[in-house]
Amino acid sequence: MYKPVDNRNAISIDEARKVIVENIGSVKLGSEKIPSIESNHRIIAQDVVAPNDYPTFRRSGYDGFAMLQEDLTKLPRTLKVVGDIPAGADFDRPLVSGEAVRIMTGGYVPDGADIVVMLETTRMIDKDTVEISETQHKDNITPIGDYFKKGDILLKKDTEINPGGISLLSAFDIQDISVYKKPTIGIITTGSELLHPGEQIVNGKIFNSNGPMIRNLCKENGADVISYTQIKDDPNKLKTAVNDLLDKCDVIITDGGVSVGDFDIIADLAKSSEKLLFNKLEMRPGSVTTAFIYDNTLFFGLSGNPGACFTGFYLFVEYALRLMQHQTSNCIECIATLNAEYTKTNMYDRILRGQYKFVGNHIEIGRVGGDASGNLNNLQRATCMFEIPRGKSITPKDSELRTWLLPFK
Amino acid sequence: MYKPVDNRNAISIDEARKVIVENIGSVKLGSEKIPSIESNHRIIAQDVVAPNDYPTFRRSGYDGFAMLQEDLTKLPRTLKVVGDIPAGADFDRPLVSGEAVRIMTGGYVPDGADIVVMLETTRMIDKDTVEISETQHKDNITPIGDYFKKGDILLKKDTEINPGGISLLSAFDIQDISVYKKPTIGIITTGSELLHPGEQIVNGKIFNSNGPMIRNLCKENGADVISYTQIKDDPNKLKTAVNDLLDKCDVIITDGGVSVGDFDIIADLAKSSEKLLFNKLEMRPGSVTTAFIYDNTLFFGLSGNPGACFTGFYLFVEYALRLMQHQTSNCIECIATLNAEYTKTNMYDRILRGQYKFVGNHIEIGRVGGDASGNLNNLQRATCMFEIPRGKSITPKDSELRTWLLPFK
Repeated sequence: MYKPVDNRNAISIDEARKVIVENIGSVKLGSEKIPSIESNHRIIAQDVVAPNDYPTFRRSGYDGFAMLQEDLTKLPRTLKVVGDIPAGADFDRPLVSGEAVRIMTGGYVPDGADIVVMLETTRMIDKDTVEISETQHKDNITPIGDYFKKGDILLKKDTEINPGGISLLSAFDIQDISVYKKPTIGIITTGSELLHPGEQIVNGKIFNSNGPMIRNLCKENGADVISYTQIKDDPNKLKTAVNDLLDKCDVIITDGGVSVGDFDIIADLAKSSEKLLFNKLEMRPGSVTTAFIYDNTLFFGLSGNPGACFTGFYLFVEYALRLMQHQTSNCIECIATLNAEYTKTNMYDRILRGQYKFVGNHIEIGRVGGDASGNLNNLQRATCMFEIPRGKSITPKDSELRTWLLPFK
Repeated sequence: MYKPVDNRNAISIDEARKVIVENIGSVKLGSEKIPSIESNHRIIAQDVVAPNDYPTFRRSGYDGFAMLQEDLTKLPRTLKVVGDIPAGADFDRPLVSGEAVRIMTGGYVPDGADIVVMLETTRMIDKDTVEISETQHKDNITPIGDYFKKGDILLKKDTEINPGGISLLSAFDIQDISVYKKPTIGIITTGSELLHPGEQIVNGKIFNSNGPMIRNLCKENGADVISYTQIKDDPNKLKTAVNDLLDKCDVIITDGGVSVGDFDIIADLAKSSEKLLFNKLEMRPGSVTTAFIYDNTLFFGLSGNPGACFTGFYLFVEYALRLMQHQTSNCIECIATLNAEYTKTNMYDRILRGQYKFVGNHIEIGRVGGDASGNLNNLQRATCMFEIPRGKSITPKDSELRTWLLPFK
């Protein structure tokens, strides 16, 4: 019943990420066309090219009068106001010497005109005559194609679109774009101790808290959770659950069943996989976090322990989900300053959950709540994770530590 | 046709935000019950309290054997293994002296037992007998209520829920929670120059790019865009559009119609409002950004200029949307180091769009693309904004500047 666990070869966080990078190619995301207006935070699958010059007409940079520069060689000069061009209007003929038209910011500069004089520097002599007395230094006209030429790349392949990109697509009336499909995820939480919502609490049993957390972490990180199941510790049930998902999912995340002494069914599956990525890490919590490729599906076996599950998700699953979409992690890695001595020492690098704040031009980090990995008290409040390096000495206040600022927190 | 614009009183970014803070109380968000599993990034409207102690039973911290401490006064000691308690199992009677039970991490510690000895430090003599030879320093038992006591506040009112909070709610089987309703937004883009998607490009006209940007910015910042319209510069059309929205929207955002020389219908509306918050700012771009309260609805008049619209949204609309939900801005304000000399000087504080990166323990910022506010080229790529203070001298490399790191970028 209690299988001996194979000797496992522990690797570092960076080594584990390197192995993910080297093997992520096994998981291929297809692409799909979607409406640009709904593409926020999707990843562009092919370069988006300008279908036309932009601006498409010579545009006035200011509110004022359009006219010919040759009329301004001797100042002051009065010109006949032959019309006005409000926003959105065309003008039906070229302007000629001696004429001016009233024009709005962004308005169409008529042919013939080659300067816009700002309203503030003009004076109306009567309702049809404007006087210019100041020397002009700029023409205040944005030429056709000044911002973008037809054929320019507007948004590169592998760009994550944001509202700024949507404004650009809209300016060119590009209504649909090609994006990578969202990674499809199956989540299988294992554990005979897990109750379903609404069940009676009894000795030995707990409600499943990691499953709902993983589900929401996947969603907020741009993945599509297409299946979510909760099963007892039973190798056959797990096999069935996995087989049901293999064809449908790019990534399968299991939770529980990875600890020494557990039924260790995930370890068995990992052993039979094409490619074990890692099954032991030089860190706490989450040292037994496991990853492997099976049937072109990326598997993550997260620890059933809440703190370890949380840590494993941010350090490896988030990293992989972003990588599959050709993106870097949204966990910003930086060096931050510890706000108080940390006295525990450890044989392993310890990843603590904490909070950060900007103080002047640097980042200060501190612990939040207890760091018992079974305790749920700080998963909500943690906004960063930081690393206490292994060793026998305490970590003093003001230590500069490797830190990950967590996204969407 | 070209109305003179009233003299406007310019205030600073901080003063404008202060005025928003002082008046945000006019806009009240109700609350609603929603399923906890779908509450990610919603804001809790009342304290969530623990319905029970947690853990609900004495829980083993390790894989090993549960037994009585009194049996360990003389070592080595052998004990009879009377059963095992896998994850999720109960035990039917109290343990007595001389007995041990095999127990899993997280397992139920039976009555009578008061210590769990880690598996690694035990030895099986035969299949029913375990030997303990090492002195124990900890009991490895998590008592009932050790993490949370019944009645403890699990999540405070005004907390933005994240996946960690959802795990906590799930652990207590709290299936529904009370959250603030999302702010409802109406967006009205004004401008006779604006084409609708699919229309033919003609001289003087452009596709609406700000509208789709604002719409997506609102959505990603937790608001519910319930109406989106595009109208020509026409005071009557604007009045009709506003009247249609007043009852339904917490916030109405108009875009365009705020510049000097524009038809300035927003300024008219602002004048007739209960409370003008501001209509001129000491900054560029976006100096004419306007805000007022009308019929308990918060109005923002953003500039039609893309860069100014972008800047105005992040500095004021995002700020207000978060404030309405009792949150601080997601734009992290910090001091960052300029990576290259900026030679332009300005009478106004200039807000540039840029990119940031962590270099060691501080943040380096730089410009991205041109900063012409009519140019759409860097709205996608900007990940921060920073302030070049007004003045007559150039801003040298390594200047430490007020910076806002933009969220969801």
